[in-house]
Amino acid sequence: MTAAVPQSSHIFAQFLEQLADAAGAAIMPHFRQGSAIDNKLEKGFDPVTIADKNGELAMRDLINRTYPSHGILGEEHGPENLEAEHVWVLDPIDGTRAFITGLPTWGSLIGLCSSKKPSLGMMLQPYIGERFTGDCSGAWYSGPLGTQKLTCRPCTGIENATVFTTTPALFNQVERPVFDQIEQIAQLTRYGTDCYAYCMVAAGQGDAVIESGLQAYDIVALVPIIEGAGGVVTTWTGGSPADGGQIVASGDPRLHDLLLKELSAAASA
Amino acid sequence: MTAAVPQSSHIFAQFLEQLADAAGAAIMPHFRQGSAIDNKLEKGFDPVTIADKNGELAMRDLINRTYPSHGILGEEHGPENLEAEHVWVLDPIDGTRAFITGLPTWGSLIGLCSSKKPSLGMMLQPYIGERFTGDCSGAWYSGPLGTQKLTCRPCTGIENATVFTTTPALFNQVERPVFDQIEQIAQLTRYGTDCYAYCMVAAGQGDAVIESGLQAYDIVALVPIIEGAGGVVTTWTGGSPADGGQIVASGDPRLHDLLLKELSAAASA
Repeated sequence: MTAAVPQSSHIFAQFLEQLADAAGAAIMPHFRQGSAIDNKLEKGFDPVTIADKNGELAMRDLINRTYPSHGILGEEHGPENLEAEHVWVLDPIDGTRAFITGLPTWGSLIGLCSSKKPSLGMMLQPYIGERFTGDCSGAWYSGPLGTQKLTCRPCTGIENATVFTTTPALFNQVERPVFDQIEQIAQLTRYGTDCYAYCMVAAGQGDAVIESGLQAYDIVALVPIIEGAGGVVTTWTGGSPADGGQIVASGDPRLHDLLLKELSAAASA
Repeated sequence: MTAAVPQSSHIFAQFLEQLADAAGAAIMPHFRQGSAIDNKLEKGFDPVTIADKNGELAMRDLINRTYPSHGILGEEHGPENLEAEHVWVLDPIDGTRAFITGLPTWGSLIGLCSSKKPSLGMMLQPYIGERFTGDCSGAWYSGPLGTQKLTCRPCTGIENATVFTTTPALFNQVERPVFDQIEQIAQLTRYGTDCYAYCMVAAGQGDAVIESGLQAYDIVALVPIIEGAGGVVTTWTGGSPADGGQIVASGDPRLHDLLLKELSAAASA
């Protein structure tokens, strides 16, 4: 795996590529290999693979060795030094269900919060060899199509919008009818998209992502990519998305306003 | 794009690779490029892209030049010589909605019916560089992980099964409750998977695909892959899948019997 030349001037942009190399190398030996799947929950099915754990450990190790003063918040292991100026927010495999079924729509999320605000992020898809990177003021793609700047597309009405969500089952009984209403108006809705949805909004291939129940590590890495491509990410009340929860991301700020209006009926205070 | 060395001894295995090269070359310039999307239907939204049309024309041209006596059944253009011994069945972009939203879970389906029976097939994903090929007696993968033989995994109960479907909205009001029942029993259900689902069953990454309303070109190419990997594909009544309709594909014949029993309540005669 070769690191893409970083196009961002963020102080940690090169280090981000190194983290991506480490995560990809730890994860890829387990993709489509039928690795043992542990069951996180006693009830239900929340699969977590060796790849998840190893990917996070590889990144933690590199951060601890290179920037021991930085904090780390990850999905699989305990938080470290969250009061630091720079805190890395890691989800080695976003879309574990896609991963364990062999589908390529999972990604490794590597985010950085600086002074509590998302400042740098990457979605890495090591099987395809794609990287989507953003630093809030710019966003870039590198992969099979070369290296390109990411730019959201205009979309001024919900009726023209392509809307993504991972699954409608994500929504509670207050949220679901509000989402269903948006789905009815929207031109096209796509499910099962996980972190890819946000990158496709950044790439101008879709218009919005609507989700709920997200953790910080599900969203922090994606905020600088969407914002860097000209889009907006907030909670359903228009607040900071840095802690997760109810999240809406839009490529066009005008669409975002319309979606916030619709979502307000189900927004948590 | 380089053709993989064909591992099948089917008489048209090498020609299949050439068709895949032609389809990939015609389609890829349009992926994530924001090409114009026509609207096939007056009502609703059934997008068809230039890529779809060009991909099919490229394959038709190659077939007509190389094997003028062969028949062709495609999604985008009229049928040709369907009474021929060998009929190519083409869907240049299965998963058009994934394609137009930039997601990598679409594929080009290239199938061959010999004496009315599916005998050879490929699912090509030219962005990732993956090819899943089958000739009913064997099935193979070539792509980022190298070249591998495809083998379905054992699964003897619905409660242990990972089940794929493109979207529950595919089912009519008789079919939907039957699918919902299976979803409740199954360990994991994945939506939005299109042709990938069948390839993941062939690769031992999932256990079954349940769909309805399929056309011949949605399924013919996938039958030799699933069967070559040790699985079974039939209609919901256990009949030949070659004409599409209500389709169930399973990696384990024992699971297939259980699914047919569940599906019989909604099976068309």
